[in-house]
Amino acid sequence: MKTLITGGTVVNSTGRGLADVLIEGEKIAAVLPPGSQLLGADLKSAVDKVIDATGKYVIPGGIDAHTHMEMPFGGSSASDTFETGTTAAAWGGTTSIVDFVVQYPHQNILDQYHLWHEKAAGNSVIDYGFHQILSDVQDSSLTAMDELISEGVTSFKLFTAYKDVFLSDDGQIFRAFQKGAENGALMMMHAENGSVIDVLQKQAIEAGHTTPYYHGTTRPWQTEEEAVHRVIMLADLARVPLYIVHVSAKQAVEQIATARDRGQNVFGEACPQYLYLSLEEHLAAVSEQWGDFEGAKWVCSTPVRSREEGHQEAMWQGLRTNDLQLVATDHCPFCMTDQKELGIGDFTKIPNGIGSVEHRMDLIYQGVVDGKITLERWVETCSVTPARMFGMYGQKGVIQPGADGDVVIYDPNGHTSIGLNKTHHMNMDYSAWEGYEIAGHVDTVISRGSIIVDNNTFLGSTSHGKYIKRGLSQYLI
Amino acid sequence: MKTLITGGTVVNSTGRGLADVLIEGEKIAAVLPPGSQLLGADLKSAVDKVIDATGKYVIPGGIDAHTHMEMPFGGSSASDTFETGTTAAAWGGTTSIVDFVVQYPHQNILDQYHLWHEKAAGNSVIDYGFHQILSDVQDSSLTAMDELISEGVTSFKLFTAYKDVFLSDDGQIFRAFQKGAENGALMMMHAENGSVIDVLQKQAIEAGHTTPYYHGTTRPWQTEEEAVHRVIMLADLARVPLYIVHVSAKQAVEQIATARDRGQNVFGEACPQYLYLSLEEHLAAVSEQWGDFEGAKWVCSTPVRSREEGHQEAMWQGLRTNDLQLVATDHCPFCMTDQKELGIGDFTKIPNGIGSVEHRMDLIYQGVVDGKITLERWVETCSVTPARMFGMYGQKGVIQPGADGDVVIYDPNGHTSIGLNKTHHMNMDYSAWEGYEIAGHVDTVISRGSIIVDNNTFLGSTSHGKYIKRGLSQYLI
Amino acid sequence: MKTLITGGTVVNSTGRGLADVLIEGEKIAAVLPPGSQLLGADLKSAVDKVIDATGKYVIPGGIDAHTHMEMPFGGSSASDTFETGTTAAAWGGTTSIVDFVVQYPHQNILDQYHLWHEKAAGNSVIDYGFHQILSDVQDSSLTAMDELISEGVTSFKLFTAYKDVFLSDDGQIFRAFQKGAENGALMMMHAENGSVIDVLQKQAIEAGHTTPYYHGTTRPWQTEEEAVHRVIMLADLARVPLYIVHVSAKQAVEQIATARDRGQNVFGEACPQYLYLSLEEHLAAVSEQWGDFEGAKWVCSTPVRSREEGHQEAMWQGLRTNDLQLVATDHCPFCMTDQKELGIGDFTKIPNGIGSVEHRMDLIYQGVVDGKITLERWVETCSVTPARMFGMYGQKGVIQPGADGDVVIYDPNGHTSIGLNKTHHMNMDYSAWEGYEIAGHVDTVISRGSIIVDNNTFLGSTSHGKYIKRGLSQYLI
Amino acid sequence: MKTLITGGTVVNSTGRGLADVLIEGEKIAAVLPPGSQLLGADLKSAVDKVIDATGKYVIPGGIDAHTHMEMPFGGSSASDTFETGTTAAAWGGTTSIVDFVVQYPHQNILDQYHLWHEKAAGNSVIDYGFHQILSDVQDSSLTAMDELISEGVTSFKLFTAYKDVFLSDDGQIFRAFQKGAENGALMMMHAENGSVIDVLQKQAIEAGHTTPYYHGTTRPWQTEEEAVHRVIMLADLARVPLYIVHVSAKQAVEQIATARDRGQNVFGEACPQYLYLSLEEHLAAVSEQWGDFEGAKWVCSTPVRSREEGHQEAMWQGLRTNDLQLVATDHCPFCMTDQKELGIGDFTKIPNGIGSVEHRMDLIYQGVVDGKITLERWVETCSVTPARMFGMYGQKGVIQPGADGDVVIYDPNGHTSIGLNKTHHMNMDYSAWEGYEIAGHVDTVISRGSIIVDNNTFLGSTSHGKYIKRGLSQYLI
Repeated sequence: MKTLITGGTVVNSTGRGLADVLIEGEKIAAVLPPGSQLLGADLKSAVDKVIDATGKYVIPGGIDAHTHMEMPFGGSSASDTFETGTTAAAWGGTTSIVDFVVQYPHQNILDQYHLWHEKAAGNSVIDYGFHQILSDVQDSSLTAMDELISEGVTSFKLFTAYKDVFLSDDGQIFRAFQKGAENGALMMMHAENGSVIDVLQKQAIEAGHTTPYYHGTTRPWQTEEEAVHRVIMLADLARVPLYIVHVSAKQAVEQIATARDRGQNVFGEACPQYLYLSLEEHLAAVSEQWGDFEGAKWVCSTPVRSREEGHQEAMWQGLRTNDLQLVATDHCPFCMTDQKELGIGDFTKIPNGIGSVEHRMDLIYQGVVDGKITLERWVETCSVTPARMFGMYGQKGVIQPGADGDVVIYDPNGHTSIGLNKTHHMNMDYSAWEGYEIAGHVDTVISRGSIIVDNNTFLGSTSHGKYIKRGLSQYLI
Repeated sequence: MKTLITGGTVVNSTGRGLADVLIEGEKIAAVLPPGSQLLGADLKSAVDKVIDATGKYVIPGGIDAHTHMEMPFGGSSASDTFETGTTAAAWGGTTSIVDFVVQYPHQNILDQYHLWHEKAAGNSVIDYGFHQILSDVQDSSLTAMDELISEGVTSFKLFTAYKDVFLSDDGQIFRAFQKGAENGALMMMHAENGSVIDVLQKQAIEAGHTTPYYHGTTRPWQTEEEAVHRVIMLADLARVPLYIVHVSAKQAVEQIATARDRGQNVFGEACPQYLYLSLEEHLAAVSEQWGDFEGAKWVCSTPVRSREEGHQEAMWQGLRTNDLQLVATDHCPFCMTDQKELGIGDFTKIPNGIGSVEHRMDLIYQGVVDGKITLERWVETCSVTPARMFGMYGQKGVIQPGADGDVVIYDPNGHTSIGLNKTHHMNMDYSAWEGYEIAGHVDTVISRGSIIVDNNTFLGSTSHGKYIKRGLSQYLI
Repeated sequence: MKTLITGGTVVNSTGRGLADVLIEGEKIAAVLPPGSQLLGADLKSAVDKVIDATGKYVIPGGIDAHTHMEMPFGGSSASDTFETGTTAAAWGGTTSIVDFVVQYPHQNILDQYHLWHEKAAGNSVIDYGFHQILSDVQDSSLTAMDELISEGVTSFKLFTAYKDVFLSDDGQIFRAFQKGAENGALMMMHAENGSVIDVLQKQAIEAGHTTPYYHGTTRPWQTEEEAVHRVIMLADLARVPLYIVHVSAKQAVEQIATARDRGQNVFGEACPQYLYLSLEEHLAAVSEQWGDFEGAKWVCSTPVRSREEGHQEAMWQGLRTNDLQLVATDHCPFCMTDQKELGIGDFTKIPNGIGSVEHRMDLIYQGVVDGKITLERWVETCSVTPARMFGMYGQKGVIQPGADGDVVIYDPNGHTSIGLNKTHHMNMDYSAWEGYEIAGHVDTVISRGSIIVDNNTFLGSTSHGKYIKRGLSQYLI
Repeated sequence: MKTLITGGTVVNSTGRGLADVLIEGEKIAAVLPPGSQLLGADLKSAVDKVIDATGKYVIPGGIDAHTHMEMPFGGSSASDTFETGTTAAAWGGTTSIVDFVVQYPHQNILDQYHLWHEKAAGNSVIDYGFHQILSDVQDSSLTAMDELISEGVTSFKLFTAYKDVFLSDDGQIFRAFQKGAENGALMMMHAENGSVIDVLQKQAIEAGHTTPYYHGTTRPWQTEEEAVHRVIMLADLARVPLYIVHVSAKQAVEQIATARDRGQNVFGEACPQYLYLSLEEHLAAVSEQWGDFEGAKWVCSTPVRSREEGHQEAMWQGLRTNDLQLVATDHCPFCMTDQKELGIGDFTKIPNGIGSVEHRMDLIYQGVVDGKITLERWVETCSVTPARMFGMYGQKGVIQPGADGDVVIYDPNGHTSIGLNKTHHMNMDYSAWEGYEIAGHVDTVISRGSIIVDNNTFLGSTSHGKYIKRGLSQYLI
C-alpha cells in the first residue's frame, strides 16, 4: 500500500513547511517537495492512494503517554477496555498510547506485565507501549526492572499517595530510584502527600463534608508541592531522571522549574483537565440529575484546582516555558452509574479518574487558537516530546523516512463540538468535556500506513495495534 | 545539478535517523529512506553526484548569528573582510552568517544598511543576513526600523556600554524597545554597565594596572548581571522580546532563567570563548613573544571570566537547560601586530574582539564528545535555533524539502587540530584557539546546493553568497 | 528637673514590662521597678514631677529619619519650616528627625550643610540630624564626605531619577559608593529609573494624559524594581551598606530580600503612604473642589501604587519580615493652593510630596491594632531601628540610663481622628490623611527631659531642639 | 541580698551602654547610670556586695534551649545528669536550659513530664524549663498538649527520622501541627528524611563502610533539605509556627529563608558544632588512641557537614541574616568508653550526641572576635531570642527591673582554653572542643541573684535551680 499525502503543511516542533509525505507499507518513505514531483516523475500516479491535505496540517500521530485502560479498581475497573479506549483515541488523532501495567502490593510485576500484554494484544486499534507501576518495591521488582527494560518497558511509576494501595515510603522510592540510575530507567512519580491527605479526608468526612467539592479541598496545593519537592530531592540524591505525572499546582511547577534551572533532569506532565477545569466550576458543580454530586464527574487526583489561585494559567505558562514538557491525559474513565456513584455521601469512595483520551489533540489545539501556545508547540507537546521522553522517537513522533506511518491530518477550518449528545467514543455514560467547542477537526488518522479514521468514518481494527518496544528516554539533558 | 547524500545520519534538534538527502539545484528536494530507493527506482543513477556519508552526520549548515566582518574601529577595522571571514566560516561548516550593520552616532542607519550591502555583495562565499546596530536612537532611526524589517533586517542591537560610541541611555533603549514591540522586531542588547566600567578602567590605569588582565577585572560580573537585569525589566515593561548577546557571567544566566521562568521572551547567546576560556588562563597569560601582553589575544567584551568563580561551567549548564538558546561567535578579529598592540601599556586601547567564526561548529561539537550536550543539542544551538530565532527557519536551519541546500557532512571519526602552524583561514596573525584539539571534522560543506568545501579542498566563490531576507523571529513563546 | 514616669509599660523592640522611668535633667537616670521604691526609698517624693502612665505605653520618642523641611523647589519650597514641621512632629510623638541637606548641581555641599544648620538652629522644637544629598558628585563632594562624617552627617543620598536635578549616573553613584565603603558612610538611594520615567511622562502628556493619575502610571513598578536591583549590584561591587528610601513596589521588596538572604547589607525604608494609600483610591480620586485634580494631594515619588497588584500588603509583610527595617515619612509637604495646583493640566509639574511627619507614630500604631505588626515591632521600626540605622542609638531610640530623655507616653485607650477640621499642625492646606481614625493617642511627649506635649497642650519651644551629631550606622550585619 | 554591678557595659540585642545593675533578692531592681549615684545617694554603700565590672560586658545569662540531660538511650543514658550538666552550663555562663522531656512510643507524655520534674528538681544548679518530645502522636498526647501548655511546656518536638523510635509519619506530624495551631504551641522538628537515611546506612554497612565517617555520608544534605521543606509546607498548611532544630545544611537555611521571605513563622536553630566542625576534619579524624574510630566523638545528628561544600560559612551567614535565630547546643553527651565505643565496627550503633553546654557562650563569643557577628548579635542569639522564642522573655533574657537576676559578666580581655587537660565540667571522658581557644572569659555568673560562679570558683548548689513555667512564644511575626 502506497499513500501520498499532498499539499499539506507538515508541522514539527521547530517549524512548518509545505511538503508531501509518501507512505509505503507501514513506514514513511519520503518527505517531498509539494507537487509530488521527484526527479521529473509524477509520484501521484505511482501510489495507491492520494490524500489531498491542502490547507490542512500534517502532523505525526498523537501520543498519549498516560492511560489506564481497564485499570482494576476495587471489584470493578476503569470503563474503557483497550478496544474502546484505543478506538476513542484513534478518533481523536492519537495513534499511540503508553498504558500503565498495574501492580498492587504482593503481586509480581512480571506477571502483571504479561497480563497487560494479554489484555492489549488483539484488542487495540492503535499501537501501545507500557509503563510499569511499582507499589510495594519488592527486591524481586527491582531485579525485574532490568528485564522489563529489555522488554521495552523503560519507565516506572511510584506513588507518594494511596496508602495500602500504591504508596511507597521514601526509602522504597529511593531504592527504586537508585535502581533506575543504574539501568537508565525514567522514574515517574505520582506526587502528593498521601499521609496528610488521609488526615484531611478523615476530618472532612467527620465534619460532614462529604460532597465531591471536598475531594479538592482535602488535597491542597501544599500536599502536591511538598511531594514534588521531596521526590526531586530524592532523585537528585540518586542521580536519576524524574518525571512528575499530572502536575496541577502552580507551586509544583515552580519546584520543577527551580530544579531544571540548576540542571536536574526533572520533567512535568500537563493534562487537559488541569489546563481547563477548576475547583469552583467543576468540583463544586450542581446539576438537576446529580445535585451536588455532579462534581464527581471531575474527581481525579491530583485534583482540578482553584481558578482563583491561578493554577490553570500557571499550567499553560509552564507548557509555554517548557517547565512542563508534554501533554498526556491520565485517561482513567469511570461511569457515573454504578461507579462514580459509589461515592455518594462519601467523596473518598468516588473512583478517581477522568476520560480524555479522545479529546487531547483537540483540547490542546484549541490552546493554539486561543494564543496560549504555538502550533509547533502543540505538535511538540502532544507527539514529538512524548516520543522522545519515552524512547520511541524515530519510530514515532516524527514525519521522516523510516518512521512509522503514523500521521494525522488536522483541519484548522473544521470544527469539533465535544461530547454533544453522547457523540464521544469512550465507554463513559457522561463526558467530562461536554460543551467544549474546538476550532479545528481531526480529519484523517493513519496508523502504521493504514487509514483508521477517514473523515468521520472509522476504519480501524483491533487486530492492527502492535506493542511498542521502547528504548531509554531520548530527552535527557 | 542534483546531488544525493547517502548513508548518513541526519540529525536535527529532536533526534537523528539514517536518511538520504537529495538536493536539486539550490534546494533540498527530498529526504529519503537510506538506500536511495524510491518507489522502486534507484536514485543514485538519476543524480549528478553521489556523496557517501556513511558513518557521518548530515546536518543543516551552521549559522553564526553574530559576526562583525570589516567592522570599522578607530581608523582601522576588524581584520576579516566578508571574503576572508565567510571563507573561514565555510571551512568550519558555517553556511550562513548574520552580520551587524554598524551605526555610529549621527550616522543614518539606512545609509549604513546600504553600505553593508555594498561590502558584502560579491564578496561572500556563503549567505549572509544583517542585524542593525542602533547607537544614538534618532527619531529617524525608529522610523527606519519599519523599513529595515521589510528589507529583512528584523533584529536591532543596542548597547549599555561604550559611552560616546554605542551606549544608549535607558530612555533611548526603552523607546527602541517600544518600537520593537510595535513592529515585531527582536531587540538585542550588549548588556554591561558601561558607566561603572569606565570608572573602574580609569582607576585601574591610574593605579598602573595596564595589562590585559585588568580588562577582565574592570568588567566584573556585577556589571553584566546588573545590565542584563535592567534590560530585562525594560523589555518586560515594553513587552518586547529580548536577546542578550555574548552572555558570560553565571549570574547573568540566572537573571535570564528567572525571567524565562515567569514567561518572558528573553534569550541568551552563548559564545565559544565564554564556554572555554578564562581570566586566569588567558587574560593573565604570559608569552615569550608578547610578555604579559599575551592576554590581549583574548580581550573581548564581555570578558572571559574567572574559572574559579565557575562561569564556564554555568555557561555549559545554561546551554543544556536552554537558558542560553544558541551559540554564536561574536567574531570580531584583530591582529596582534598593528591592532591589538595599540593597547600595550593601556589595556583600554586594545581593540576588543576574538576570531572564532571558523571554529564554532568544531568547538561545540567537542562539547558533545565531552558529554556537555547531546548531538541533537549541538545541531539545535548551532543551526536550528539561530534560524528560528532570526526568522530564517524553513529556508535555513533544517533539512527538509524546499529548504536551501545548506548541508554539512561532519565526520565523528575525523580530527581537527585548531590553529596549528597558522592553518586557520581567518585573516588573523594568531589564533585564539591554537592548541584546541577536536575529535571530529568538517568533511563537506554545501551551500545552496553547491559544494564549497570538499574534504579539505575549498571550492567556494565570492560570487556565490546571497543576502538572506529574514522574517520576524520564529522562536517566541 | 527630675521627672518620674510611673506605672507604665515600657516597650522596646524585644519585649515589654512594667517599669518606672526616672529622668534627671536631659537624661534618663534610671529604669526602676514599678512602684518607684528603690532600696527602701520612695522616689516619688524626691522628684519634681510624677507622671502617672498606668495603662499606657512608655516608649522611646519616635525618630523620623526622612524629612524635607523647607526643601527648596523651583522658586518655592516645601511648606513646613523647621518650626512648623518639628512642632507637628512633636504633636505626633516624634522627638527626632533626620532632615536632608539638599545639594543641587554645582552647589558646594559644605555650604549647603552650613546653610541647613542656619535654617534649623533656633527653629526646631525637637532634636534634628542631617543626611546629605549628593547630586552631581563633584570630586570635592567626595572629599567633603569625610568632613561631614566627622560633623555627624554619616549618610548620603543619591538619585537615579530627576535628570538635570538630582540624578547621578551609575559611574557617579559607584564612585560615591566606593568613598562610602572607605569612610563607613551609609549610602542612601532614591531608586527609580528616571530615564524611562521621563520617556513615559513625555508620552503621557503628548497623549493628553495630564491628570495626577498618570503620575502613577508613568512610574510603573518595573522602574523601581530595576533601579533597586541596579544600586544593590553597585553596592555589592563597592562593598558598601545601602539603604533604599521609600520602597513602594512589592518587587522592590523582593530584590531587597534576595540581597539580604545572601548576606548583603541592604536596607529598605517603609513609609505610611505606601502601606495605606493606592493608585486606585488616591491618585484617581475626584472631588467637588478639585475635580480630577484631587489626586494631586497624593502625588509623591515613588508613587502610591496599585492595590490590585498587592503592593500595600507586600509593604506590611516586608515590615513584618524585616525586609523593610524601619518607617520614615519622606515628609515633604506642599499646599494645594499655589503649589500643587501648578500641575493642573500637566501632572509632571505637580510638586512631589506628602506631609506625614505628624501622623507616623499613630498610623503605624494602627497597624498594631489591625494585627499587621506587634507592639514591639512598632517601637522597633519607628524608634529603635532608626536610631541604630543612623548612628544615634544609645543617645536616642532607647529607654536606658544615660540616654536622652526622649520619651513618649502613648495611650492605647485614647483615640485620634486625623486631619478632621484642619486640626493637624503641619503647614498644609489639606491633609493627605484626613479621615483616618486611630485607636490610640499620643498623650505626653518628652524631649531631652522637657515635656513638650502634655495631654493636648503644646509646651515646646524652638529654642529647645539641638543638632544630633550622629555616628556611623550601628545596624550592619 | 543586694548586689550592685558597677562600671560594666550592659549589652542587649540592639546596643550597649555603660550602666550599673542593681539586683535585690532574686530580681533585677534597677538599671542605673554608671557611677551608682541615684538622686544624690551613693548606692554602693547601700548594698551587700559590689562587683566591679569595669572593662567587661554585663549580659543577661545565657539560655541553652536545647539540652538532653540524662536522656535514656538503649540501656544507658546521656552521660550528664541534671547536676553535672547544669553545673557545666553555669561554668560556661548559661543560667537557664530548656531540656527535652522524652517520650518513647507507647509512653504517656504526662507521666514522662512528671518524671522529668523528678529528675531535675533538687538536682539543678540553674533554672530549667522543658520541651516535650512527641513520638507516636497518640490521641491522648494531643489532648495532653493543652495541659502541658498550662504547666509551662509550650513547645513540642517531633521527628522525621529514627524509625520505630521517634519518627512520626507526615499525617501524625500534621495532626500535631493542627493541635499546635489551636493552642498556640511552637512546634519543633528534627528534620531529616529517616527513611532514606535508613536505606543509605544499610547499604553502607553492607558495603563495609563502618567507620564514623560514613555517619556523615549517609545523611547527605538532601535528606535534611527535603525534610525541612516538607515540614515547612505542613506548617504552612496547618498555619502553625515552626522551629527547626539543629540546622546544618546550607540548603536547609535557604529553605527557611524562602519561607520567611514570604512571611511564614519558620525559625532555625544554629548549634556550635555546625558552625565550627566538619566532615573532613572531624568525622574522618584518626587518632592514636581510637584509630579511625576517633570520629565517633563528633557523631551527632544532623551530622557535621562538608566544609568543602560550604555549610559552616552558610550557618554563620544564616546567623547574621537572622535566617537562623538563635544558638543552642543540642547537648547530648556520651563518653567514648562504654558508650560511643558500642559503635566500633558499625557506625549506626554509635550513640548520637555532642556535649557543648559548657562552651556555647564562649564559642559564639569567639565569632564576635572573628568578625562573624556583632557583640549585640551574640547576646541576641544566645540569650534574648531564646527567651523570646520560648516564652520566657521579661523573666529571662533581659536586664531590666523585674527580670530574674540572671547576669553574666564576661571579660573580653580574659582567655579560655577549652577542654585542655580535661578541665571541662561536663561528665564526658573527652571533649568535642579540645584545643579551641577563646579570646574571652566568663568571669561571674549570677542566677536569680545568687553568685554561682565567681572568677573560677564555683559557688552554686543543686538546691538552687527552679523550674521555669514558660508562656507561649513571644517571637512570632
